[in-house]
Amino acid sequence: MTEVARTRARLPIDERRAQLLDLGRRLFVERPYDEISIDDIAAEAKISKGLLYHYFPSKRSFYVETVRVAAADLVARVTETPRQKSPEERLERGIDAYLDYVADNAAAYRTLLTTGIGVDTEIAAIVERTRAVLTERILAELGSKPPPALRVALRGWIGFVEGASLEWVTAGGPSRDVVRKLMIEMLQAALAAVPTLPR
Amino acid sequence: MTEVARTRARLPIDERRAQLLDLGRRLFVERPYDEISIDDIAAEAKISKGLLYHYFPSKRSFYVETVRVAAADLVARVTETPRQKSPEERLERGIDAYLDYVADNAAAYRTLLTTGIGVDTEIAAIVERTRAVLTERILAELGSKPPPALRVALRGWIGFVEGASLEWVTAGGPSRDVVRKLMIEMLQAALAAVPTLPR
Repeated sequence: MTEVARTRARLPIDERRAQLLDLGRRLFVERPYDEISIDDIAAEAKISKGLLYHYFPSKRSFYVETVRVAAADLVARVTETPRQKSPEERLERGIDAYLDYVADNAAAYRTLLTTGIGVDTEIAAIVERTRAVLTERILAELGSKPPPALRVALRGWIGFVEGASLEWVTAGGPSRDVVRKLMIEMLQAALAAVPTLPR
Repeated sequence: MTEVARTRARLPIDERRAQLLDLGRRLFVERPYDEISIDDIAAEAKISKGLLYHYFPSKRSFYVETVRVAAADLVARVTETPRQKSPEERLERGIDAYLDYVADNAAAYRTLLTTGIGVDTEIAAIVERTRAVLTERILAELGSKPPPALRVALRGWIGFVEGASLEWVTAGGPSRDVVRKLMIEMLQAALAAVPTLPR
């Protein structure tokens, strides 16, 4: 088989895999992990269980992949504003995208960050990796060699965003604009605090 | 058996249980959960496996109990400064106690918050409950009926403290004083941000 032919043959497989992951994200948002069986997934996807296993060796691996795709999607959305825009606008749009994501995936977000479905080192590693990537993106925006305190402050701010988002989607209360404004002010406070700190 | 006699008979059992939990906290800090067997625990405690099972039906339940005790200990230490002291001093001492705790239990803290061992619904519930208790304590300090945005801000700040602590114990870098100062400034910023927010 030539390289071209192989690529062509592989495409539908990737598409099918992507479709299955889309379906998985929807299913795992709608119902708890433990309540969804491989049979349910195959039925929803209108494929055989055998074919599903061809793509994903287990329900757990399928779930891990849906979380990985969801995390990549979050990072892409949060960081999609072009570099031509001002840092302020990119931050604001980034937080907007984050809050959209949280609101659209409230159940999955809450589950991932507060309950046991993760039950799993791989999931925890994806969540932690996502935090690290977002921290690095902000550091890259700020340029130059970051003092260690800045890294601590930014990683803390990511924690702030998560904690505040969880409270917002769980208990409700303030409007989305209030939450966004709070997050922006807290990042400004974190950045402002660092230069005044002894290094 | 009289009530007094029953109490007297129960005491050694509670003491033994407390000793076992102390031992468990030490073991689970030193080595990963998966590497510790019930045999190891019984050997360290110098008791039979049978007796250990008398107190805790499984390794998992033993672990969950050690985490519960550790969380209660954290809350007690963070909130132990008498109410006679000024709010500023109590905050500063509370953060000090938190950072002591994180530094003394760095491996366990990191494990609980970032890897899969913790990620068990019961463990996750203890972690989440601890966050809620700390948030409520701060709200109680502030008195009066908190606007929903304040709750979001405080829950976010708890996330900040966790994220910053994790970065601090994992990557190291800034001194403990810098981290403490950062946490205090961020709480002040969070409290200052709320009254300016539309309710």
